Amino acid sequence: MSRETNERIPVLKLGDILLVTIQVDMHDQLALTLQNELTEKIVETQAHGVVMDISGLEIVDSFIGRMLSNLASMARVLDAETVVCGMQPAVAITLVELGLSLPGIRTALNAEQGIALLQGHPAAPVEARGHAPAAP
Amino acid sequence: MSRETNERIPVLKLGDILLVTIQVDMHDQLALTLQNELTEKIVETQAHGVVMDISGLEIVDSFIGRMLSNLASMARVLDAETVVCGMQPAVAITLVELGLSLPGIRTALNAEQGIALLQGHPAAPVEARGHAPAAP
Repeated sequence: MSRETNERIPVLKLGDILLVTIQVDMHDQLALTLQNELTEKIVETQAHGVVMDISGLEIVDSFIGRMLSNLASMARVLDAETVVCGMQPAVAITLVELGLSLPGIRTALNAEQGIALLQGHPAAPVEARGHAPAAP
Repeated sequence: MSRETNERIPVLKLGDILLVTIQVDMHDQLALTLQNELTEKIVETQAHGVVMDISGLEIVDSFIGRMLSNLASMARVLDAETVVCGMQPAVAITLVELGLSLPGIRTALNAEQGIALLQGHPAAPVEARGHAPAAP
């Protein structure tokens, strides 16, 4: 087996929250592996939230944008809320230019604030920026 | 600039602990970038602990082994303790076979236990396995 097929993105459990740090270029197989692992881990750990840190990504394309949306939707149907955090300014620009404004996904400036948001005691700056839960 | 030169491993701040998830094949430039970023972030955030999660690594070589040792030593001289966690069984075997038993580095089974260890209230299983602080 090549290294390629072994590649996977770890899903870390921190309390009742799962933390995923995306830092490599995504490709189809890796995205599928992450989908499987994340959904299995949500069920296994009964996590109620997922923090996806994308601070390691300097560029995004429509594939990654769709993957983030899909992961968040999958987590949602498993009753876990997703917060995408650590987005670099250039990534925010690209996402919106691609028409992917990540509707329904909450965001936070960094992993720490993302975790606080999911634990129900958001840090002040996040609240002040209007990241209120979207109405269903 | 190619993607290669942009590549970096994010260092996440969680309270007064820094979390590094190593999941890609290491090479010289990436290791140097990580060294710089980690040491700068320790100073900037006054972190007292570093959790290095290597659950995404299925194989290690002497380069990665040395890099882990070096990162832990650098953190130590900056007054931050390092816990390596999430090591897969095959990696533990390889490390010891390579003569790298990571002396002076504390280990934990997963990131959650690693963080608990650094916060001074280690989860019971970790204590029971004899991960007492090494005498100086």
